[in-house]
Amino acid sequence: MHVYDIIMKKRNGKALSKEEISYLVDGFTKGEIPDYQMAAFLMAVYFQGMNPEETTKLTMAMADSGERLDLSGIKGIKVDKHSTGGVGDKTSLIIGPILASLGVPVAKMSGRGLGHTGGTIDKLESIKGFQTALPERQFMEQVNRIGLAIVGQTANLAPADKKIYALRDVTATVDNVSLIAASIMSKKLAAGADAIVLDVKTGSGAFMKTLEEARGLAKTMVAIGTMAGRDTTAVITDMNEPLGNAVGNILEVEEAVECLKGRGERRLMEVSETLAAYMLIAAGKAAAIDEAKAMVTESISSGKAFDKFKEFVKAQGGDTGELESGNFERAGLSETVYGRDLQEKPFDNAYLVSCDNQEIGMASLVLGGGRQTKEDVIDLTVGIRLYKHLGDEIKPEEPVAALFANDEGRLREAKARFVKACTLSDNKDFHNQIVYEVITKEDLSGSEK
Amino acid sequence: MHVYDIIMKKRNGKALSKEEISYLVDGFTKGEIPDYQMAAFLMAVYFQGMNPEETTKLTMAMADSGERLDLSGIKGIKVDKHSTGGVGDKTSLIIGPILASLGVPVAKMSGRGLGHTGGTIDKLESIKGFQTALPERQFMEQVNRIGLAIVGQTANLAPADKKIYALRDVTATVDNVSLIAASIMSKKLAAGADAIVLDVKTGSGAFMKTLEEARGLAKTMVAIGTMAGRDTTAVITDMNEPLGNAVGNILEVEEAVECLKGRGERRLMEVSETLAAYMLIAAGKAAAIDEAKAMVTESISSGKAFDKFKEFVKAQGGDTGELESGNFERAGLSETVYGRDLQEKPFDNAYLVSCDNQEIGMASLVLGGGRQTKEDVIDLTVGIRLYKHLGDEIKPEEPVAALFANDEGRLREAKARFVKACTLSDNKDFHNQIVYEVITKEDLSGSEK
Repeated sequence: MHVYDIIMKKRNGKALSKEEISYLVDGFTKGEIPDYQMAAFLMAVYFQGMNPEETTKLTMAMADSGERLDLSGIKGIKVDKHSTGGVGDKTSLIIGPILASLGVPVAKMSGRGLGHTGGTIDKLESIKGFQTALPERQFMEQVNRIGLAIVGQTANLAPADKKIYALRDVTATVDNVSLIAASIMSKKLAAGADAIVLDVKTGSGAFMKTLEEARGLAKTMVAIGTMAGRDTTAVITDMNEPLGNAVGNILEVEEAVECLKGRGERRLMEVSETLAAYMLIAAGKAAAIDEAKAMVTESISSGKAFDKFKEFVKAQGGDTGELESGNFERAGLSETVYGRDLQEKPFDNAYLVSCDNQEIGMASLVLGGGRQTKEDVIDLTVGIRLYKHLGDEIKPEEPVAALFANDEGRLREAKARFVKACTLSDNKDFHNQIVYEVITKEDLSGSEK
Repeated sequence: MHVYDIIMKKRNGKALSKEEISYLVDGFTKGEIPDYQMAAFLMAVYFQGMNPEETTKLTMAMADSGERLDLSGIKGIKVDKHSTGGVGDKTSLIIGPILASLGVPVAKMSGRGLGHTGGTIDKLESIKGFQTALPERQFMEQVNRIGLAIVGQTANLAPADKKIYALRDVTATVDNVSLIAASIMSKKLAAGADAIVLDVKTGSGAFMKTLEEARGLAKTMVAIGTMAGRDTTAVITDMNEPLGNAVGNILEVEEAVECLKGRGERRLMEVSETLAAYMLIAAGKAAAIDEAKAMVTESISSGKAFDKFKEFVKAQGGDTGELESGNFERAGLSETVYGRDLQEKPFDNAYLVSCDNQEIGMASLVLGGGRQTKEDVIDLTVGIRLYKHLGDEIKPEEPVAALFANDEGRLREAKARFVKACTLSDNKDFHNQIVYEVITKEDLSGSEK
């Protein structure tokens, strides 16, 4: 087999065999196939695409490129959740304790934030003392004991993905649905869960800007999961504005705690409850969505979910004092954005109708809370607290948001970015949907099946 | 400027600026831009193409990547010729002496053969003692003294092309008209001639299999040459069968000598005379094609062209004895292919209607006369002598070709390849055209201008 022929075949729009895809992925992972041939191949895939069978073969080859986590030592049906990345998305912090409190084991490997999107591991590390690196044995033991553990992704899980992603990132071959789906699903398959619930974000702060794109990615991933024998569900949710009231690591932990105490923001709660409910169904704990949602609501109102969160934080070495008191130590400097800051033209009242959510994420990055490159060191105490959402009425004297930082210059730059991202209008009939669609294997028609 | 943005821009089908193209070519030549980014870029160009302006900018950037030959020390209008590569094409050996005998200076840098196609430098080296590497000063001095010098391409002429070609060769990005045109024209522009006559081959032994593809490449190259301020003409000629009666280095020199002695094969002479005539026009020695062709015919019939060839060979250290006698030292073993070998079904007479010319070139390579990789050492004495051409009547007992080699196994394998390449038919109304079209700047319409 020759790499040249594989590149040529894909370039000419032909479908590749399992052997060809494995040859390519294995050879590249081992360093036997050079970067430049893989780069040409990836660009050919960008233009010619891959059919669902090829995409699944690529995913499997990538999942098999390193260690596969063996979760068989954990009792029960293991359900994993994955979000395609957004701004202010702290659902993992909320869902994990809920599920664990309802007897579903959660053994989760999470990532760090990059660019305008945040990552669960960074958020957890903003809790004093919290350890995100656990030996595998301790990780398993903790899940069996308290039902929940969240750790950073280890290096040898799907190393092909790591290497291919790094190359895509510098060759303008990131935005292809097959490559995105294979990247996500290879890690999920290697992470060993029995069932997978995917949160596919759509909107200005998401990678998939339109519902149609999000649906395409959702169906592709559900098809891969199904072909790989994992019960897979995708929920398409809104990312046209930050999810919830907080953006930034410590601020998001603070908000997750509010949610677990029963005081969560409506949209954030709807996404969290929906995802948790589908995970309960996948775990065989509920038969229908209403039943599952009722279980979720009860786990919060009873205090069980919050108790589980504290137990989890403690188990991984974190300080639970701030969780109890609700007094989190945010960055020292702050700046409030008022309604009048958002529009030069005088107004009495208006409506927030658009916010460039990627820009909001970048404002948080500018505050010091995000990474431009993987090597950047971030400030876990900075971020944005939102008082208004899309569709809300805005008066000139009302605060819209507060920004927190440890540097005046950063604060100024972030405020300017935030202001630029928001648009007001007289139109009061604005409605921003939150959960758009749920895709299961039953929704796969013809070509995606 | 960022390479990533340039790749993305081309990937999205946008036209690149002069600055972007120069940044890419310079950075890649200097090793500052890695292979993998250039590979992704080349694949994006394969899919999105380049417009004529971009193609010219690419060509100029590549031509400027190294030394540009300064031919100003040579008196008169310098006209260069380039063929896109074929089987049995020895026109440079014939045209050079003709032009020099008519007072047009020929200062030529030629290449070696690769794959199924031959190269002028190999052919010249089959003449005993012939030196293809001359110091620049001696090269210039020889052109001024006798009007003709042909040397191998020096390494620092368009190094960007060398590096980009090597990458295209392993990433399935060779067959794109802009990249092919830029590769050829960058070397031609750097080689310093005032005018360029291109021989664009089309047919089974050529890179451009169809007339339409050949026309596209011809127009692209004429447009580049014109935009670069060089008088450029392209002649599209047939490569559905070898050009002339000989394939293989010493055999082709032998045939070139026959031509210069006035005994050339019809098709080979037509191509040589046409190219030479357009070069004479470009050099300002003739106003119209008929006048130019008459000058060419006279230079041969008078013996001046052959005298010039001998003078040229002698000047570069070659032995003119074989040229005079016509007794060239071919390889020791030979095998004749008869009409009956070409068809299993018995026949009285038939017509040669098709020959896979790339396979004929490969048969010559198998005999030992060609290179699979640039490092291969070749046998200059082997080759094929053809007795029949497309459209000719074939009788079972008539010889069609003779193969020469120094190894029985190679001879057998090459014969099998040769036989497989040829197809007979009862159809006698077969005609294989030789000169298809001439493209000048006047033929560039709208987008190519």
